[in-house]
Amino acid sequence: METWDAIRARRNVRAYTADPVSDEQLHRILEAGRRAPSASNRQHWDFVVVTDRTRLAELATVWHAAGHIARAAAAIALVLPVPGDDRQAVLDQFDLGQATYAMMLAATDLGIGTGHSSVGDQARARAILGVPDTHEVALMLGVGFPADRPLRPMTKPDRRPFDEVVHLGQW
Amino acid sequence: METWDAIRARRNVRAYTADPVSDEQLHRILEAGRRAPSASNRQHWDFVVVTDRTRLAELATVWHAAGHIARAAAAIALVLPVPGDDRQAVLDQFDLGQATYAMMLAATDLGIGTGHSSVGDQARARAILGVPDTHEVALMLGVGFPADRPLRPMTKPDRRPFDEVVHLGQW
Repeated sequence: METWDAIRARRNVRAYTADPVSDEQLHRILEAGRRAPSASNRQHWDFVVVTDRTRLAELATVWHAAGHIARAAAAIALVLPVPGDDRQAVLDQFDLGQATYAMMLAATDLGIGTGHSSVGDQARARAILGVPDTHEVALMLGVGFPADRPLRPMTKPDRRPFDEVVHLGQW
Repeated sequence: METWDAIRARRNVRAYTADPVSDEQLHRILEAGRRAPSASNRQHWDFVVVTDRTRLAELATVWHAAGHIARAAAAIALVLPVPGDDRQAVLDQFDLGQATYAMMLAATDLGIGTGHSSVGDQARARAILGVPDTHEVALMLGVGFPADRPLRPMTKPDRRPFDEVVHLGQW
């Protein structure tokens, strides 16, 4: 898919078909995240990819709005080190946002939807995934083919108007 | 450009040709940022786009590693509200990372390079851009055509190995 089409077609997808996402497709999505930029190229992220149905169902219990994870073809858990201070937390979150967007766009390019979920019960998420106490599960991404409609460029996204967001020359 | 090519071709560009970036090209880059997802779709960001040479030179003074901004065809300043608490700071930074990556990829698609810069002197950045005290300039992005080499997919990015970053099933 053309880049500009993918950017306009990406949306949150939380209802998935039963079709599997292949290892090659997952590899490409994860590779997009691996290639994302980060502060001083430190790449603080780790990605845990889950396709086992039992474990997906378990992951769906770590947050009240994580139900879609149980029905996804796969989930990618995005893991960060526990930040040493506020400055690290801010930089790591910015970088994770970049990596997450890269993965969502690589998935869109393949016609695959993604839907993020927060993590409420950190101890439980760590236990399910085997993540050590030095790290935390920052976010989960459900991955699967959209059950509703294909990913196509949107003409009227639900966003603030361009002229309100963008300031020319000065605020 | 194909999405997968753009993802692999994006890199930090801090040396630019003298060629201008057209209004249409800037519009597309900014539109990519406007369309980025955010927590509860709150879109806390504002973007100030600068093309005036004098102002670009001024912006280059707000951080010791912002010299490339003076030589860019344009700069996009990414502005966030001053966060009310740590939770908001974390969410806003994650969202800004998504919007920034979207803009960098939209630029790559057009053959245009981007190079980010931190902001050290917040008061000075605010004064140059007319940003009110309720907001802060979180980041600047230099925008211009690469002076060194075109943007092409990289085969060996400087990143941690895939098998170290990605954990299959469990950490």
